[in-house]
Amino acid sequence: MHKQTEIVIDTSGPGLTELTDRAHRFVADCDIDCGLLTVFVRHTSASLLIQENADPDVRHDLEEFFARLVPEGMNWLRHTLEGADDMPAHIKAALTASSLTIPISGGRPALGTWQGVYLFEHRRQPHRRRVMLHVSG
Amino acid sequence: MHKQTEIVIDTSGPGLTELTDRAHRFVADCDIDCGLLTVFVRHTSASLLIQENADPDVRHDLEEFFARLVPEGMNWLRHTLEGADDMPAHIKAALTASSLTIPISGGRPALGTWQGVYLFEHRRQPHRRRVMLHVSG
Amino acid sequence: MHKQTEIVIDTSGPGLTELTDRAHRFVADCDIDCGLLTVFVRHTSASLLIQENADPDVRHDLEEFFARLVPEGMNWLRHTLEGADDMPAHIKAALTASSLTIPISGGRPALGTWQGVYLFEHRRQPHRRRVMLHVSG
Repeated sequence: MHKQTEIVIDTSGPGLTELTDRAHRFVADCDIDCGLLTVFVRHTSASLLIQENADPDVRHDLEEFFARLVPEGMNWLRHTLEGADDMPAHIKAALTASSLTIPISGGRPALGTWQGVYLFEHRRQPHRRRVMLHVSG
Repeated sequence: MHKQTEIVIDTSGPGLTELTDRAHRFVADCDIDCGLLTVFVRHTSASLLIQENADPDVRHDLEEFFARLVPEGMNWLRHTLEGADDMPAHIKAALTASSLTIPISGGRPALGTWQGVYLFEHRRQPHRRRVMLHVSG
Repeated sequence: MHKQTEIVIDTSGPGLTELTDRAHRFVADCDIDCGLLTVFVRHTSASLLIQENADPDVRHDLEEFFARLVPEGMNWLRHTLEGADDMPAHIKAALTASSLTIPISGGRPALGTWQGVYLFEHRRQPHRRRVMLHVSG
């Protein structure tokens, strides 16, 4: 059995948007006990992350670390015509994940107690992001 | 066919623990010729890595690189109440993988000659880590 | 249904080689409507990346960023006997992906408009790289 859906996330600047609930709901709708959930982002300047869903400071610090590791204004960059934040966004996407695969166990994604699934937006302007959820079981 | 198991790895500080043999054994038990092995870590301060399994110095250098790229004590961090090593651990996990998917071919994970599968512990204290192995075929 | 093939890519130094067309062709040959494409690299000094396939400057800047983040000649490295570029290659591979999973929708990998799939070579000398494509559906 393979089932898929596309969810839309409207972002308003860099940072993490949680999609764990939507993933849980889609898996529940598929009504399978054991299988796989694949999450896939259809963009190259936003990415995916599994991270702690307890303390919001974790999300702040993650965003800040990536902003410092890949700052805007590196003067050797060539790809600058889409804005100073575009090439750093591609690099941050390369350093994180485009796809995640999570086992489904007992009818639910087998995330650990503190794990949440996030879209990581890397651009400054608002963007409409498309993420595919795919269940096989 | 979908089958899964959870393995437990007790770590004693930062570094790589190989789980290739356990993955091979689980795939052999599943007795399928062609399929997929998914490996998933249920934590946000440990991660997964496929790396060279020949020279142990590779593992030392990987650990050292990540310790230098994401040092403890960055004074702008907000999430500090779980210890100086906790937020760096989350960042290192974000820079590596939470899930890996490896084709199974001829009844075995189709790893290259020098590839091993590792749990990458990022915390200083001993931790009990849970890793799911999932075979579909 | 599970089907797989191995493609060979001969590289001639660091950089990105696109394999999107070969992935599309293999998926078309499999003749399924809905499923998953897994891409897996069988090496630890080359990796995989989904990135923008429009402006070639993006690929240049990605390569340049990783060369600056993980330079040759870091004097604390122990694994140096396979060449000054070998350990940096392993680190770059650890920072990117060994496996990618892409949903197949309407008979095609559901890549976004600007997404291409790339092998990322990290060694200086020419290498013959093996990448597995696996379709389940």
